[in-house]
Amino acid sequence: MRWQDLENEPCSIARTLAVVGDRWTLLLLRECFMGMRRFEQFQSRLRISRTILRDRLNHLVQHGILRRCEYQTRPTRYEYRLTEAGRALHPVMISIAQWGDAYMADPSGPPVTRRHGCCGHALHAVFKCAECDEPVRPKDVVVEAGQIER
Amino acid sequence: MRWQDLENEPCSIARTLAVVGDRWTLLLLRECFMGMRRFEQFQSRLRISRTILRDRLNHLVQHGILRRCEYQTRPTRYEYRLTEAGRALHPVMISIAQWGDAYMADPSGPPVTRRHGCCGHALHAVFKCAECDEPVRPKDVVVEAGQIER
Repeated sequence: MRWQDLENEPCSIARTLAVVGDRWTLLLLRECFMGMRRFEQFQSRLRISRTILRDRLNHLVQHGILRRCEYQTRPTRYEYRLTEAGRALHPVMISIAQWGDAYMADPSGPPVTRRHGCCGHALHAVFKCAECDEPVRPKDVVVEAGQIER
Repeated sequence: MRWQDLENEPCSIARTLAVVGDRWTLLLLRECFMGMRRFEQFQSRLRISRTILRDRLNHLVQHGILRRCEYQTRPTRYEYRLTEAGRALHPVMISIAQWGDAYMADPSGPPVTRRHGCCGHALHAVFKCAECDEPVRPKDVVVEAGQIER
């Protein structure tokens, strides 16, 4: 299989990875969730080649995850903002960050802490079923072909 | 910045991506969560080069996400199983799958459905705060340098 063919695979994981599963793309989205919007910001923070950065930004715009907005005329300048589909990737970022906190941190602990603004506690997000409110564990997830009536 | 340097960045997202953010790696982990364990299974299902597959498997073993277990002698054969750290990536897989279901599905709907075995409903997992049980939304997450007393 070629990476370019992933988008047509009958699998939501494969299709998502076709859009965000490339090197640097999720890191670029981390920057977007931290409020960065401009090419020069991304470039100075990620220190990757402008060619790669331009390619990844265009790819995310094409797939409706970022939108390109004019913020200045003469000369015209654009910035990149998360769309609703882009913001919907937040659980992906949080789950990646939490795994890193748990398994990749230095002995002194994670370098950054996320706090849940609603209650003020250090954020520990758990996946729960929207129907029964029980935690979602790997062994409880049953994969079935086709649709379940909702 | 070079991709190889990500692992030393003071960021749990960067460090996680250093381990699982490469093309094919998350797709390989999808296979592991679906119960696949053997090189030939991965190879026939992903249809990627044996060199890439071997590289990705070794990388995951080195980082403690998969462990290599002998399942046959004469000749010796190994299989790959998720470790506890590997199983802890389940929320990453679920959040990727759910985003794909929502934004990358064909008009006829997602090709595969996940059911929550506990209650029998189509799985819709939501991230909730383990402290206050409220849903975790992007705007409620405050990022702070250093540690919060837990």
